[in-house]
Amino acid sequence: MARTRPGRTNRRQNREQAAAEAAGLHQLPWGQLTYVDRPIDPLDEEGVQKVHDAAMRVLEDIGIEFLNDEAVEILRKAGCTVGSNGQNIRFDRDWIMAQTARAPSSFTITPRNPAREIEWGNGKAAFGMVASPPNSMDLVGGRRVGNRKDYQDLLRLSQSFNCINFNGGYPVEPIDIHASIRHLDAIYDLLTLTDKVLHAYSLGPERVEDAMEMVRIGAGLTHEEFEAKPRMFTNINSSSPLKHDWPMLDGAMRLARRNQPVIIAPFTLAGAMAPVTIVGSVVQQIAEALAAVALLQEIRPGVPVVMGAFTSNVDMKSGSPAFGTPEYMRAMQISGQMARFYGLPWRGSNANASNAPDGQAVWESQNSLFSVLSGHCNVIFHAAGWVEGGLSASFEKVVIDCEMIQQWMYYNRPVKVDEGELAVDAIREVGPNGHFFGCQHTQDRYREAFYNPFLSDWRNFEAWVEAGAQSSHERAHHLYKQILRDYEAPPIDEAIREELQAFMAKRKEEGGAKTDF
Amino acid sequence: MARTRPGRTNRRQNREQAAAEAAGLHQLPWGQLTYVDRPIDPLDEEGVQKVHDAAMRVLEDIGIEFLNDEAVEILRKAGCTVGSNGQNIRFDRDWIMAQTARAPSSFTITPRNPAREIEWGNGKAAFGMVASPPNSMDLVGGRRVGNRKDYQDLLRLSQSFNCINFNGGYPVEPIDIHASIRHLDAIYDLLTLTDKVLHAYSLGPERVEDAMEMVRIGAGLTHEEFEAKPRMFTNINSSSPLKHDWPMLDGAMRLARRNQPVIIAPFTLAGAMAPVTIVGSVVQQIAEALAAVALLQEIRPGVPVVMGAFTSNVDMKSGSPAFGTPEYMRAMQISGQMARFYGLPWRGSNANASNAPDGQAVWESQNSLFSVLSGHCNVIFHAAGWVEGGLSASFEKVVIDCEMIQQWMYYNRPVKVDEGELAVDAIREVGPNGHFFGCQHTQDRYREAFYNPFLSDWRNFEAWVEAGAQSSHERAHHLYKQILRDYEAPPIDEAIREELQAFMAKRKEEGGAKTDF
Repeated sequence: MARTRPGRTNRRQNREQAAAEAAGLHQLPWGQLTYVDRPIDPLDEEGVQKVHDAAMRVLEDIGIEFLNDEAVEILRKAGCTVGSNGQNIRFDRDWIMAQTARAPSSFTITPRNPAREIEWGNGKAAFGMVASPPNSMDLVGGRRVGNRKDYQDLLRLSQSFNCINFNGGYPVEPIDIHASIRHLDAIYDLLTLTDKVLHAYSLGPERVEDAMEMVRIGAGLTHEEFEAKPRMFTNINSSSPLKHDWPMLDGAMRLARRNQPVIIAPFTLAGAMAPVTIVGSVVQQIAEALAAVALLQEIRPGVPVVMGAFTSNVDMKSGSPAFGTPEYMRAMQISGQMARFYGLPWRGSNANASNAPDGQAVWESQNSLFSVLSGHCNVIFHAAGWVEGGLSASFEKVVIDCEMIQQWMYYNRPVKVDEGELAVDAIREVGPNGHFFGCQHTQDRYREAFYNPFLSDWRNFEAWVEAGAQSSHERAHHLYKQILRDYEAPPIDEAIREELQAFMAKRKEEGGAKTDF
Repeated sequence: MARTRPGRTNRRQNREQAAAEAAGLHQLPWGQLTYVDRPIDPLDEEGVQKVHDAAMRVLEDIGIEFLNDEAVEILRKAGCTVGSNGQNIRFDRDWIMAQTARAPSSFTITPRNPAREIEWGNGKAAFGMVASPPNSMDLVGGRRVGNRKDYQDLLRLSQSFNCINFNGGYPVEPIDIHASIRHLDAIYDLLTLTDKVLHAYSLGPERVEDAMEMVRIGAGLTHEEFEAKPRMFTNINSSSPLKHDWPMLDGAMRLARRNQPVIIAPFTLAGAMAPVTIVGSVVQQIAEALAAVALLQEIRPGVPVVMGAFTSNVDMKSGSPAFGTPEYMRAMQISGQMARFYGLPWRGSNANASNAPDGQAVWESQNSLFSVLSGHCNVIFHAAGWVEGGLSASFEKVVIDCEMIQQWMYYNRPVKVDEGELAVDAIREVGPNGHFFGCQHTQDRYREAFYNPFLSDWRNFEAWVEAGAQSSHERAHHLYKQILRDYEAPPIDEAIREELQAFMAKRKEEGGAKTDF
């Protein structure tokens, strides 16, 4: 049974709320975005069938390489055709569809604090913190190689923002911890500095098993309780084109066996690892994703899986990946439409390719957010803090993104139309020479009438200059520093903390995940 | 007959294109955005009926004040009820709807260069340059009071960007020209520095008549030709709540009599000049707009009119107007839905409240652009260059906005699904160990495959630092300077130029639009 006590959780949340308010961080309450508009579907019914048929032709006629003997054996036994190289798997489309139908269209994941449970699917979005950049940057310190201090500070920001629903990985790679034991310290920080859903990297059996064990210990669960429902997740990337690598498959299979969710996210960059056409890249993305979905459903029928979408285009001048482009927008929406066709939750990202959290970062991020939200994305990776095409986590961009995300959440409230909202009586009362500030209709509503941002500065120019003429980048800098000063770690049972530490000590003594350096 | 020769136009446009390319300004060709997605409709059918009914109750039971005796007399003769103050007009809803039905759902406006003809309505968007701020700003010169040099430079930018379809007014107020003759010089600059559709301010009979006459002369038209179809337009704002002022009504009536389009844009700021509820503000906005539509259709049945939407909310802390907020987004979409219900084209804006062209300006602008585009807005005012809630025109923001607008235009291309796009053969050819750069499918398409931005910097971090680590704001600064250096004025027949100058000289001698200062 989980040892977190609800009473304690409430008290802590009140304390957090008070601290946040003192810092001027007027947040929306913890929760998930629920879509109210219809999704934007770029394809007509015939287009959906054509994309589906093309993906099936890839699976039937071309096949996907599985660089993992165990996976190959499972697929061979399930009746798939194994090529002469022992890796190429060709699939029957009916079997693929039957396997896909075994996966749930939505599910919940429950971290050690049950109040942080999230749902993936069911018309909802979950926003995840930036994950996996090798560098971090801020306005004063500039860009630096990822380190544990920045890693921990980014986790503190992730914990502090109510609109961040989960951690999608390490918000920056803490490269100053040796790779053999990095996952132990990193998961410990994730479990103690935050109480939100976390992700385990599928980078070798020890790392995956250690992460699952630490999540189990952290939530105070028996092994049976851990397996009873999703508690964490992994995200695997195919090695496009048409290939699933050994460690990714190994990690995915380990989690699937224990009923833990797996996101399969091909990185199908149009013109590089995938066709130069966006539709063709999505075809390849679907084929690569469904091949892994079919495998995992064979291993554990009904295990939660998520269809990942990371199709974007390259800059044909430099060869660099571009994000938040018009092509990316359509790729995300088409991916969402196809995920609904297959009945699977889907993952997108809030991506951009700017080298600083400047205007370009914001317009590309807004394009990305618009496209995933208009496509009813369920799992939004890198929602806060990503810049430089994912090579850096920006502290200020975390704050900027959370402001934008909150506005999208507020936008996604149902529009109410009743006599109070229509306000004909107020219009009559105020008349042609009045002002609405003073009327009762306004007095009854103004405190809760409008979205209240924490980062936007709406003062007039003179007052803004008087206060230092700070750009949103500078304001975000001061705000993130303030949030770190006000941060309080979420409570954790001391016995659990000790058990985690003991497990880490033992595993470090054993060498962690051994490396050859 | 128009004296502009098509051959000449083509040669000029080729020259412009070459100059723009030399400046690194890789633009999409001149044209309008045509919507391909369904609009986002926040209201259900019942909601539409409720909003409509509420607007009709305002018109029937509360009435609108017309501070113009001529307008009152026209409405009295048409059967409307005039209140005891001689200004309050109450309308029958059936009559309002019959008058509204007389207005076209779409129409074209043809400026002196017929190649710059634009259509308002018919599933298209037209983007207009920022209009009417009293100040301008740029990165080096800072914020200053509007002046003719900046006014002219902003017109040169407006002319240079293909995605700017019209000029919505003066892009900054040239305050160094005396108010009595300012409109003469300003319209002359509009007619000679650009060849796009222009707007006349409804600020007194002389200004309106002079503008119409100069547009007629500029296009080489007889009076009959001028009236034969829309050649220019005016935008009037109601004096919310519930009031239309004398000069705005006078100007609107003058244009309507000559078959020139009128936009009626109430500035219904929720919680100030309109109810604190967004739906209620839109109710008031509709009532104010339709009252003027009915008047103009009585004056000239079938005259083109546009339903304006400028509902936003105030910052309840400072009382300042806010733009690009979640409330603004829904207000725009609901306005669009209601405009389609009334069969009228509609106007929105690309607005933001930031004091600089920083991240906040961009995310608020992107919210605004998303909301007007998802609402299928036909006439987008302030599309490029607006900051500070409309109190400043920013040179760099013009460039930033045009980059964003182009991306939305590119996004609004139909999604094609055929064998070439599906790319199964290319996926087969490249296989699991290849790369798509070299394959024939890519070679056949890569030049035109992706959107090519002029402002985004997609180089890697090291190359970007090497090049000076410029933010998008700084890059926009250099780009606008370059565009001004490369600018060439559109050709104009010398005889027409002389006729314009003679008209101005005469009108200046007469005192222009007399002021008491």
